[in-house]
Amino acid sequence: MAQQHTVEDILETRRQIVNEAISEDLPIDDPKKLYEASRYLLEAGGKRLRPTILLLAAEALTDVEPGSEPYREFPAVDGRPIDVLSAAVSIEIIQSFTLIHDDIMDDDDMRRGVPAVHREYDLSTAILAGDTLYSKAFENMLETGATSEQSVRALSELATTCTEICEGQSLDIEFESRPAITTEEYLEMVELKTAVLYAAAASIPAIILGYEDAFDSLHSYGLDIGRAFQIQDDLLDLTTPTKKLGKQRGSDLVENKQTLITVHAREQGVDVDSLVDTDSVETVTEAEIDEAVQILEEAGSIEFARQRAHELVESGKQHLEVLPDNEAHRLLSEIAEYLIEREY
Amino acid sequence: MAQQHTVEDILETRRQIVNEAISEDLPIDDPKKLYEASRYLLEAGGKRLRPTILLLAAEALTDVEPGSEPYREFPAVDGRPIDVLSAAVSIEIIQSFTLIHDDIMDDDDMRRGVPAVHREYDLSTAILAGDTLYSKAFENMLETGATSEQSVRALSELATTCTEICEGQSLDIEFESRPAITTEEYLEMVELKTAVLYAAAASIPAIILGYEDAFDSLHSYGLDIGRAFQIQDDLLDLTTPTKKLGKQRGSDLVENKQTLITVHAREQGVDVDSLVDTDSVETVTEAEIDEAVQILEEAGSIEFARQRAHELVESGKQHLEVLPDNEAHRLLSEIAEYLIEREY
Repeated sequence: MAQQHTVEDILETRRQIVNEAISEDLPIDDPKKLYEASRYLLEAGGKRLRPTILLLAAEALTDVEPGSEPYREFPAVDGRPIDVLSAAVSIEIIQSFTLIHDDIMDDDDMRRGVPAVHREYDLSTAILAGDTLYSKAFENMLETGATSEQSVRALSELATTCTEICEGQSLDIEFESRPAITTEEYLEMVELKTAVLYAAAASIPAIILGYEDAFDSLHSYGLDIGRAFQIQDDLLDLTTPTKKLGKQRGSDLVENKQTLITVHAREQGVDVDSLVDTDSVETVTEAEIDEAVQILEEAGSIEFARQRAHELVESGKQHLEVLPDNEAHRLLSEIAEYLIEREY
Repeated sequence: MAQQHTVEDILETRRQIVNEAISEDLPIDDPKKLYEASRYLLEAGGKRLRPTILLLAAEALTDVEPGSEPYREFPAVDGRPIDVLSAAVSIEIIQSFTLIHDDIMDDDDMRRGVPAVHREYDLSTAILAGDTLYSKAFENMLETGATSEQSVRALSELATTCTEICEGQSLDIEFESRPAITTEEYLEMVELKTAVLYAAAASIPAIILGYEDAFDSLHSYGLDIGRAFQIQDDLLDLTTPTKKLGKQRGSDLVENKQTLITVHAREQGVDVDSLVDTDSVETVTEAEIDEAVQILEEAGSIEFARQRAHELVESGKQHLEVLPDNEAHRLLSEIAEYLIEREY
């Protein structure tokens, strides 16, 4: 009988595999400073959720036991060897590029426990590091060994995804100065800014391995769990102790960032702008945050967000029914649950 | 007998065609502000040199009279209709993306006679507008109707070109704080930062129209004339009156930017850093610039740059010999000369 893997095992082993692949596929070329800055955030950590989902989707589609086939020569439906790891690296590189540029736009100083790239280096280097990762992601997605038809499809999916991420980030910034948004508008923004990259990660294996019939379902799975992931992020900002969170709990409230919770609370008539008076994460007190969370709980906003995330995960899991009944399928299902059960 | 076109005619008519195509291929979608910011610099003007070279290369390869075939359905070697205009727009979009991000990095306030995007809008919008153009360029390059094999080749060329542009910009920034660079190092930087996009523009028609044999020669033509273009830009900064130039003459000297002229002068023992004492383009005088230019002339540096640009244009024209003897071929040759004869 096949060995059973836990989600934690899977995440940890895939994280190491992806990290090695990043070193291989994104070497430190000249100019050194540019490539070091490009890799700096990738080397600072990260759970590698998206590339892990890509690798598991490949295993689920081809009905092989997780870890049993080499990711650099993964069997396509017609038997050709496909480098799914190169596609996984491409997705993680895009994620890193967006973090670097987002941190500049949001004027965030820290990321993954280290200074943001524009703080560790400077503004110019950070912009340029992001731009370099952008084209490197396209270069890597061209290196899978898929047929030309499949590569064109994968590249098209990647380009559209990047455009949508930009649209989502633009909406996110716009929403900061437009308080009266609806939960639907908020969720559309989250779909664009966050979920489409999960959708690309889950569905690109269907393209490059020749399982086109499964593309739509895997794409929908990614959209659902990506939205759930962001809602959980919004919840964790309010509920996880500052130390565990790696940044001040309640910082979204302090910085007046819209979240599903605050959007819902505003719809319920809560004066969200007055929840926290302090406007700096350096001076806000835990008591202030506690009081704000209490009000959001009483308005039902925290429960609303939890419920919404739960529904999205259930919906996401149902989309997996297109896959054979195998262990990778089960793990993709468990990762969906993990996304809303994780505590940081 | 076929009508003879002048370079000015060709540039003006192609400029209008490319402008219309940009409006069509880069529509103002939602979020409106993002797309308006993305198109802002494209609408502010520009000679459309790179897309014009792409269109002329298509005409030269297929041996048709300039303007005689519709650019949206251009005949490939096997008769398939190819949208070469979509490829031309892709190249111009990349150019615009690099200008937007470069202006942030160089802290330039003006571009094409209007405020830079990060001045007209803000830093976040400018970063995001550039990022959006980046993926839109890839989307457009996928819309030519070329075969999948050709599209993969074209996308690969585009991605590599973008990576090299980032490397070139990184070197350019690095050189500002490292005065002792050689003319070879300077020209390598120019190749990456500027010339590779000319090379992509000239050679991508060979890919998507099925004339692979001509790819290398057209690529070399682009590299040569792209370098010549940048050297001419360096020369114009010193020799064109401020009013005609649209910015302060000698601003490269004031801002201590490396150019082929200053790099050569330093090699000749000129104390380049002391050429202009004033460190602001607002307070520098024409007399100061005149004196500096005089010294650079006496060192032979201006003549050296002129000579180098001339050699590159001659070399570029020779690479065109791979093309049939037709009017588009002649015009590509004349555009090469135009690049070093232009006065702004």
